Order: sequence, then structure tokens, then C-alpha cells
Amino acid sequence: MTRQKPTTAICAVTTDDVYVRGTSLTTDLIGKLTFTEMTYFQVLGTMPTAAQAAVLDACLVTLMEHGLTPSVQAARLTYSSAPEAMQAAIAAGILGVGSVFVGTVEGCAALLRRMLDADDREGEARKIAEEHKAALRPLPGFGHPIHKPDDPRAPAIFKVAEENGIAADHVAALRSLSSAVDAVYGRHLTINATGAIAAALGDAGVPAEIMRGFAVLARCAGLVGHIHEEQHTPAMRAIWEAGEQAVRYEED
Amino acid sequence: MTRQKPTTAICAVTTDDVYVRGTSLTTDLIGKLTFTEMTYFQVLGTMPTAAQAAVLDACLVTLMEHGLTPSVQAARLTYSSAPEAMQAAIAAGILGVGSVFVGTVEGCAALLRRMLDADDREGEARKIAEEHKAALRPLPGFGHPIHKPDDPRAPAIFKVAEENGIAADHVAALRSLSSAVDAVYGRHLTINATGAIAAALGDAGVPAEIMRGFAVLARCAGLVGHIHEEQHTPAMRAIWEAGEQAVRYEED
Amino acid sequence: MTRQKPTTAICAVTTDDVYVRGTSLTTDLIGKLTFTEMTYFQVLGTMPTAAQAAVLDACLVTLMEHGLTPSVQAARLTYSSAPEAMQAAIAAGILGVGSVFVGTVEGCAALLRRMLDADDREGEARKIAEEHKAALRPLPGFGHPIHKPDDPRAPAIFKVAEENGIAADHVAALRSLSSAVDAVYGRHLTINATGAIAAALGDAGVPAEIMRGFAVLARCAGLVGHIHEEQHTPAMRAIWEAGEQAVRYEED
Amino acid sequence: MTRQKPTTAICAVTTDDVYVRGTSLTTDLIGKLTFTEMTYFQVLGTMPTAAQAAVLDACLVTLMEHGLTPSVQAARLTYSSAPEAMQAAIAAGILGVGSVFVGTVEGCAALLRRMLDADDREGEARKIAEEHKAALRPLPGFGHPIHKPDDPRAPAIFKVAEENGIAADHVAALRSLSSAVDAVYGRHLTINATGAIAAALGDAGVPAEIMRGFAVLARCAGLVGHIHEEQHTPAMRAIWEAGEQAVRYEED
Repeated sequence: MTRQKPTTAICAVTTDDVYVRGTSLTTDLIGKLTFTEMTYFQVLGTMPTAAQAAVLDACLVTLMEHGLTPSVQAARLTYSSAPEAMQAAIAAGILGVGSVFVGTVEGCAALLRRMLDADDREGEARKIAEEHKAALRPLPGFGHPIHKPDDPRAPAIFKVAEENGIAADHVAALRSLSSAVDAVYGRHLTINATGAIAAALGDAGVPAEIMRGFAVLARCAGLVGHIHEEQHTPAMRAIWEAGEQAVRYEED
Repeated sequence: MTRQKPTTAICAVTTDDVYVRGTSLTTDLIGKLTFTEMTYFQVLGTMPTAAQAAVLDACLVTLMEHGLTPSVQAARLTYSSAPEAMQAAIAAGILGVGSVFVGTVEGCAALLRRMLDADDREGEARKIAEEHKAALRPLPGFGHPIHKPDDPRAPAIFKVAEENGIAADHVAALRSLSSAVDAVYGRHLTINATGAIAAALGDAGVPAEIMRGFAVLARCAGLVGHIHEEQHTPAMRAIWEAGEQAVRYEED
Repeated sequence: MTRQKPTTAICAVTTDDVYVRGTSLTTDLIGKLTFTEMTYFQVLGTMPTAAQAAVLDACLVTLMEHGLTPSVQAARLTYSSAPEAMQAAIAAGILGVGSVFVGTVEGCAALLRRMLDADDREGEARKIAEEHKAALRPLPGFGHPIHKPDDPRAPAIFKVAEENGIAADHVAALRSLSSAVDAVYGRHLTINATGAIAAALGDAGVPAEIMRGFAVLARCAGLVGHIHEEQHTPAMRAIWEAGEQAVRYEED
Repeated sequence: MTRQKPTTAICAVTTDDVYVRGTSLTTDLIGKLTFTEMTYFQVLGTMPTAAQAAVLDACLVTLMEHGLTPSVQAARLTYSSAPEAMQAAIAAGILGVGSVFVGTVEGCAALLRRMLDADDREGEARKIAEEHKAALRPLPGFGHPIHKPDDPRAPAIFKVAEENGIAADHVAALRSLSSAVDAVYGRHLTINATGAIAAALGDAGVPAEIMRGFAVLARCAGLVGHIHEEQHTPAMRAIWEAGEQAVRYEED
């Protein structure tokens, strides 16, 4: 039994060039595309419009930084234990880009998908809000422990999506969902950054299943900055000792 | 004894904004900067000129992709074993951005530093070439197993650096080193992509100690694309089986 | 509002000793316990009986090695790209201990839990088999692509559990489930190693939620061996090239 | 040109068994070896004596735990951000087993190697001490910030090595080095746990180049315990917040 080779459409390397998605890296990509455009093109296989690239830029810029997150602390702690392997410290930080923080992008994207697939979007929004409220389940894309009553990043992202003519079904669905949420919960829950990003990336043509990859990319850039700072003004020992002192030993 | 708190200049989070390097994320960064500009600003603390950003874009675009590298294969193998944790697959791929492949950027940057610190740059170049030749040590930034006789990515990067008026001391030093290398070795060794990137980033204001971070970032973007492809047309089983069959079992 | 410090019962470090679970490391643990006993004690907080330790040993020995798995290949590929950071290569291998391969231990443990919580265990076994068959869902703990018709590791593990008087409810439940599976599917599906381990560890007092940790530990040991071999007779280049050749480039 | 396949001597998988180093896993290893013995056998290719296994056990037991180390904190922070991927949290912790902490095992082993290769071991010890003192370089295997004046783990390890008749050249060399260090520095520097482990593992037949692998393995076990505790009495939020508060924001 012969089995066909699987294929890749991403990259071919020849003696005198590298082809990404069939396009010459050296002639048509280097110096022609921004990193963001190249990423969109390599990941999704189509060249982004200027508007799509602008929205992706806005989302990556937004997700890059949020202070000394667990992810940043893990990276700094690791860097100072293994400074010979910067990539290991960055990887340690990336490993925390999981379900709890950035994973909410995917959760919110799934809710928007549900609405867009429904005949009655408003009704579906109401149903989603009611289900989550009844189950006391956090609603992905809504609420923030610090940015109260409103996460200021969400309107900034919407503005970019609107000014670039990208805001469409997904952003509209998120706004509907937001209205339903406030009505059902009887109080205002902010759309947070991950919610806005789920909607904006959705309208920019990024499928939900790969959104986490863009979140990892944005955080990766942020981690580089924290490691660079750790190289010059290390905070790791203070972070380590504070962590130790925050937990009390208790015999079994 | 009181000890002073270490400091971070990167990010402060307030209720209604996020400040990166003292600048409002929502007012002055989202929608205003590309991801590349934001990364330069967050990592290095100064806003890049358009020319610096163009060179950084070119370097990131160049490093993003080189086919089914060990790093890409590690990421794909990991993704298919743990698809619930895309960040883990990306991290596995990033862990290979070490001394052997991308680490040559740092090695080449160190040689350029040596030349720039010397009174006689030409003489220093000759000395570097002679030392490496005598020790049979690979010269970081030179040579490529596939891109022979010349790595086409190097001139593409130089072109961007020159057209943007960035090419300066570091690029000049690398060109001098290249001449010395060809003379000392008695044959042509190509400047490779990592050599060109070490020089271009050096002239764009990126210190050598953090260059690996940018390499990790570029590869991170590339890995997202490979995982997206793995989601749709998985190659992992073929990669796995080929790996198994490439190694013969031999009893002790 | 004051918030209480969280506690750890695992370890206190003093000037002249280290206490693990309240026991002196230097007086009562080093030289007194095997690594396996120490691991059981540190993780679960109770000293294992000799029988429990024997079963845990058997499970760790079983899981350590299965040839050039994706996890091993990822570790070898990473090691050869970053030999200065052995821990990164081991970490890359560990990252693949996810839902697909070893994660089936947890899946099987959950099924055994369901049976043990049911009034009618036989009936519950039948229900489980029918559900999985109807949904065409793989049954965790059953079946193996290579070890057909039977995985020889399962009886070896059961034997240790039985000879040590550990085999009890969980092993019995797995045997019941196996009978139900064969009856419902109308053909024999082997209990595989992960199934046997889920049952044996369950009867040895290891809660399901931490079983994956022991799988990671066993694989970690195996990876050390593969890296040691890679240090002396490297296979990485062959694995890499075979992987490349196993996938065909196809223009978009 | 045909190229020979590289070989592996570690593992062959057949339909009805798994052979590790040519030995049947199911007949001769499961239930016959402890995890420690199996690890020694798989990694080094020879079956350990009972005495060698006892020393390896003692070293693994020693390295497993030292409280809320940076590695443990990184793992806990990661686990709480991505609880669906326990292996990622363990990997994050392992990534910190680098040059700074556990890497000193390798550094000390290299010094012992130097002594054992010298004609005049005492003289070489003196030279090593003088070099490090003059260069103000930390001496790997000596000194400890907490365990002062003496690290209690070192004598506990030596005792196991001596009682099992394993202590030989390496342990003797370390003792000589210790005398030379005290004489040259004019004050007592403790032999620490990593120093004692370098010597004990050396005498137990473990080559220096793979010692880090055993350190990673021991820490891996310890991390499983911390994650299990995090599952039941989470400390991550306290660790995170303490880390944030330990660092002060300072505008550029």
C-alpha cells in the first residue's frame, strides 16, 4: 500500500531563493511587507489588505503588554536561572498563554460564531447571556478585574476596525451580545480586550482556531522586552523572594 | 536593612488605561503603531524611525520561514500530541532557537563589535578570519549548506538597509570581514542571512544581547503558520514515521 | 481587608536542614527512600507502602520508553539545535505528553471513576462501551496500533499489582469494562498500557487528577537517555532530513 | 552517495513486546527494576549495581525539593494560566534547570575531572582554588546562601556513597578540593549539595555530560508535587500579586 505524502503549501527552499506561499522571499517579500503583513500571508495564505493588516497590528499591539503578568514573571524567573538560553525563558512565558487568560479570545470567538450561525442573532445573544448567568460561568470576552467599569482597549480596537472599514458581522454580533449581557445580568459588564480582539480578528478574516497563535505571537514580543529589561535591571530576585514570602509553610 | 525595590519601566496598568514606556496604549499606540514599531518601542524604550522599523521588518520577514526546520518539526510533532495546548507546540518550536541555527546572529554581532572597537578594522577582520580558519571553527554569519555560492537573503536585507539610509558601521564592517574571509580562506564564503541580520539590526540600533529575542519572535510567527496548516492538512504522522524509519535499532 | 496567606505543606528550608512534608530530608529521607518512594511521599503527602511503591515503580518503568515517539523526536531535534540547554530539549519532549498519547490515562481513570461511583458497575461498563461505540469515539485505555491483538504491558502491570496485593476495585473495574467492550464491539480490543496504569495507579492511591504528572516523570527519564545517546551517536540530522522529505511542497 | 542510517540502541518496539537495551520490558524489567534502576539502565546502557542505584536514589531524593524555587514558581504560575496542560507547567519549571542553579553540578564535575586527570591532584586543587579566588569567580559545588556554614545535604550524600562502597576517586577529589579551598580562601566554604552530587554520581558511573539530565528528572518529580498542591490549595494568585508588588514602575 502506498500512501501519498502529505503536503505543505508554506515554504520551499531552493539554492538561490526561498519561496513562501509560492512567492519569492528575496524579491517580493523582504522590504515589501511589514512583519504583520508577512505573518498574515504566511499563516493564512492570502495577502492582507491594508485595512486587515491595520486591524491585526492593532490587536497585536494591544495584546503585547499588560505588566508583570504570570507569564512575564515565569519568563523572568526562568531567564535568571538559565541566562544562556533566552529562548527557554521566552518559551516558559509562552506556556502560560492558555485557557485562563488569552484563551478567552477563542471562547468569545465561539460565541460570536454561534450568533452568526443563528437565524435570530438577538435571540441567540440573549440565550448565551442567560445560559452563562444561570451556570455562573464566566462569559468569555466580558468583564475585567482591573479595567472597571470599562476596558479602555476595547473601544480603541473597535475604532481601528471601524476607521479601516473592517468592522462587520463579528463586531456587530459582539455589540449585540454586550447589550443582551447588560440586560440579562441587570448590570454593566465591560467588553474586554480579548472580546474586542475576537470580534476584530474575526472581521479581518482570521479563523477562530488560530487566534490563540496570534495571542502567543503578541506575548512573545512583550516577553522579549521584559527579558531585555531583566538583562539590565534584574527584578528576578525580588520576584522570587516575594513569591516565597507570600506562601506560608504549614506542616501536614 | 531595607532593600530598594527593583524597577520596571515597561508597563503600568491603571483602571482606565495601560501605559507602555509612559505612553498611553489606548490613545497613542493602538492604531498608531505597527506591531514592529511597538515591539521596537517596548523592547528598546525609544520610538523607531520609519527607517529603523523598515529594517526590523525586513529582518523579521527574513527569519520567519525556512521550511520544515527542526524547530518546525518539533512544533508540529508536539501539536499533534497535545492539540489542546497550541502554546506548548509553539514553545517546543521556540526551544530550538538556540546556539546552532539562529544563535549565529549573536556570534556574528560579537565579531562586528570586535571590529568596531578596534583601531584597525581591516586588520581586525583579517585576524578574525585567520583565527577561525586556523581553529577550523565555523565563522558565524558566513556559509550556508543550501544557499551556495550565495545566500540570496543577505543582499535583500542590505538593500533595505541601504535604501532606508540605515546601513552604516555594522554593514560596512561585515563587508570588510567578508573580503578578509575570502582572501584568507582562498575561496568565497557567502555572507548568510544571520550575518546580514546581525549587521542590519546593529545599524538599526538593536543591541547584540537581545538580537536572539527578535529571532525567536520571527520564528514564533512562522510556527503559527505551520500549526495552522497542521490543523487542516496534518503532516505529523508522516514526519513521525519518517523519523522512526531513519534510525536503525542496534542491540547493545 | 486582610487576606490570609496561602499555605504549602511541601517544603521548609532552614539553615541546617530541609524539611519535606515535615520530615528531615537529611536524616530521614536521603539514603532511606528510593526516588519512587520519595516522589510518592512528596506528591501525595503519605509514605507509600512497599506494595504501593512497587506498583508505582512498575508503572514508571512501563511508561519510560516506547522508541522514537514524537516526544523523543522533538527532544532530539531541539537538543541538536540548542545543545547548551539540555533542559530545553527535555522540556520540548515533555510538552507532547498531552491528550493524545499519555492523556488517555486520565480518560481511562475517569471511566473507572464513573463505574466505581455507579450502583451497577457492570451496567455502567456496558453503557460506557455503548456510548463510545455509538459516537465512534476512541475508548481511552483500549486499543493499540502496534500491540495487536494484545498490549503485553497491561498483563505485566496487572501481575505486579496482584502479586503485591494492590489490585482492587480499579483493576476489577477495568477488567469488567474490558469484558463489556468486547461484548458490545463484537471483537476484542486490548487493554493497553495506559489503561492498565490508570487502574493500577488508582488502586495504589494515586488520584486521577495527578496521574499525568507521573506520566511526564516517566517520559522525562526516557528523554534523558535519548539525549545521552544523541550526545554520542547523533541521529538528529537523519530525523530532520527524513521529516523534510516526507512532506511534499505544493504551491497554493 | 549512500549514507548509513544512524543507530539507536535504546528501544525496539515489536508487536508483542518492547525491548529496552535488548531486554524484554514486559518479562525482565516491569516488576523487576525500580524506576531508578530502569533509568540508570536506559540512560547508561548497563545495569546498575545495588550500590550504584542507592547512590543515584540518594542524589535524586536530594535534588527533588528545595521549596518555592524560581523553577517551582514558574511552574505554578504557568499551571494556573493553563490548567488544561499540566505538562506545560512542568516544562516551564524544568526550563529553569540551567546554568545558575543546578548547572553547578556540571561545573563541579569538570573541576573534579581536571583533578583526576592531573599528576598532582593536591596541586591541581590548589590551582583551581587560586584561579577562582583571583578571578572572583564562584566556585561550582561550594557555598550556599542559606545553608551556612555547612550544607547538611552534602554529608548525607557522602554517607550513602561511603556506606555503599561507592565513594572513590571523585569523592576523594572533592574532599581534597574542599581542603584547598578553605586554605586558599582563608575561611570555610561549605561543599554544597550540587558539589556532593557531582562527586557521588561521578563515582557511581554517571558521566558529567548527562548529570544535568538527572537533575532535571529530580526536579520534574518535585514539580509534580507542587502542581498537585496547586490543584487543591492554589497559591498562584498570591505569588503573582507578590511578584507585581515587588517591582516598582518607573517612567523612562
